[in-house]
Amino acid sequence: MPALATRLTRAFDLRHPVVSAPMAFAAGGALAAAVSRAGGLGLIGGGYGDPAWLAEQFAAAAGARVGVGFITWSLRKSPSLLTDVLRHRPAAVMLSFGDPRPFADEIRAAGARLVCQCQDLAHVMDALDVQADVVVAQGAEAGGHGALRGTLSFVPEAADYLAAHAPGTLLLAAGGIADGRGLAAALALGADGVLVGTRLWAAQEALVQPGHHRAIVETDGDGTIRTTVADIARQLPWPRGFTARIRRNAFTERWHGREAELERNVHTEGPRYRQAFQAGDPDNTGVWFGEAAGLVHAVEPAGVIVERMAAEAAERLQRCAAGG
Amino acid sequence: MPALATRLTRAFDLRHPVVSAPMAFAAGGALAAAVSRAGGLGLIGGGYGDPAWLAEQFAAAAGARVGVGFITWSLRKSPSLLTDVLRHRPAAVMLSFGDPRPFADEIRAAGARLVCQCQDLAHVMDALDVQADVVVAQGAEAGGHGALRGTLSFVPEAADYLAAHAPGTLLLAAGGIADGRGLAAALALGADGVLVGTRLWAAQEALVQPGHHRAIVETDGDGTIRTTVADIARQLPWPRGFTARIRRNAFTERWHGREAELERNVHTEGPRYRQAFQAGDPDNTGVWFGEAAGLVHAVEPAGVIVERMAAEAAERLQRCAAGG
Repeated sequence: MPALATRLTRAFDLRHPVVSAPMAFAAGGALAAAVSRAGGLGLIGGGYGDPAWLAEQFAAAAGARVGVGFITWSLRKSPSLLTDVLRHRPAAVMLSFGDPRPFADEIRAAGARLVCQCQDLAHVMDALDVQADVVVAQGAEAGGHGALRGTLSFVPEAADYLAAHAPGTLLLAAGGIADGRGLAAALALGADGVLVGTRLWAAQEALVQPGHHRAIVETDGDGTIRTTVADIARQLPWPRGFTARIRRNAFTERWHGREAELERNVHTEGPRYRQAFQAGDPDNTGVWFGEAAGLVHAVEPAGVIVERMAAEAAERLQRCAAGG
Repeated sequence: MPALATRLTRAFDLRHPVVSAPMAFAAGGALAAAVSRAGGLGLIGGGYGDPAWLAEQFAAAAGARVGVGFITWSLRKSPSLLTDVLRHRPAAVMLSFGDPRPFADEIRAAGARLVCQCQDLAHVMDALDVQADVVVAQGAEAGGHGALRGTLSFVPEAADYLAAHAPGTLLLAAGGIADGRGLAAALALGADGVLVGTRLWAAQEALVQPGHHRAIVETDGDGTIRTTVADIARQLPWPRGFTARIRRNAFTERWHGREAELERNVHTEGPRYRQAFQAGDPDNTGVWFGEAAGLVHAVEPAGVIVERMAAEAAERLQRCAAGG
């Protein structure tokens, strides 16, 4: 019996109710495999759809049982990518940021579980339309792309909606969860488990430049911002309503609020952004983590992070139930 | 022994670790007294400082042990108000949205506990400078004024900061907490209790127009927005960085994003706002609730809300600790 047995651990045969977020660029096969080996479920970040990179990352997972996640609006431009990836027999495919309808049948036919990440109640309704196996309620605290609902009120509201309309659908909480307290809170709110981004972005196995890893350790939770400037600099056509939470730095100070000017200067600012990103410069590019940065004090192996999160959550729930 | 004994229930001799938010206009003496009589601690909303209204509300509390809250930047304009209010011997005085330094000594000298509501870690540092007895970590989910940090990651980060720098200071979580799940989550995150606004705004005792009460029951958690348009219409000089979460309605659809135009038309739009507010029109004025609206399905007596929240939280923590 795992210390924290939930519908998620039973449905996916996990030791801990912890899934790693399929963070674009950062969540490669090594991170996903480490999370799965520690008893959670690791997801490779399909990102903007580079087939060669994805093949490499499934190879790097070295046979561990992992899943994969896609940016749905981007996947629509190269749907063959999904077919390719399903040959690796992922345990689950997560779709975020867009209409899941075009992909749901193929995912299910391949025997993978369908996970739909949702940023508001309207998205939850879309996820139930395609009979998602798992709904992720993602709050605005999250690093990277997301929207505006807060995790603490969105999760119980999503739980109520699922209970009324699709009681067999599992619910994960995402956004701001970085330790056993966050996991315990998510379970108390009615989630069956958590999707963890920022805390595992700061894992040794994540594909993150050392300079960016140093930045998260130094940044507190006040030090991030939701903005579109990183997407403008990268010329990525994100749909309206989605913004990205990244580190507040010289880049965001310079351009947030001056988006039209950035767009006009993208021929020089785009290459500058990409060069700084590659170099691990923490100041002049997007540094992709969320408010949970204030709870991250070291870069550690993913397995250590997952095991400690589960143990702390179990201990915390015991202590709270016993009255402080 | 209360079902949920925490440092807060012990320090304030409460049955439940629940404090009601001092919501301007809505949190009068009847609401505060009902919360206190149910075993929590009720706070009267000092708002923008109307001495006659405040005297009435302390009278309406009819001898119940209550506290009071002020909008700090506004209190600065009429500091004698604090002196007047302290004659009622409030159990606690909460300061939000501004520098607490000018008021801390007078509050403490009167024998009231000093509660500082904080929207980010920098505010927590300010609260410790004045040796606050209680820090409230308020997340962006909250209705009414606030800022941008999310409750779920801000509360544990504030808890860590207090543990390191002022371990005797109590911590309340605020923003998005409307039922036993939210209270249980707050305790799991490391809070000693919760400050509840939106759910108690929908209490029978709250000074809220029936049309606005009907609106909260009909609105889900996607139906609110953080904006400055209500403050512009009321010509209230809120400091930069604070916005108000209100219902998304015809008023916010019309003016959010067109703030400069609203400012130019305030001579007609201001009276229109106030008239609609008085009439309880849910569409053409600010309707003051937060994302927890999605968890509010009925207007009920405050005592029922507080008792159920505490009982549900205790039950939820027991169930989670036992493994689902």
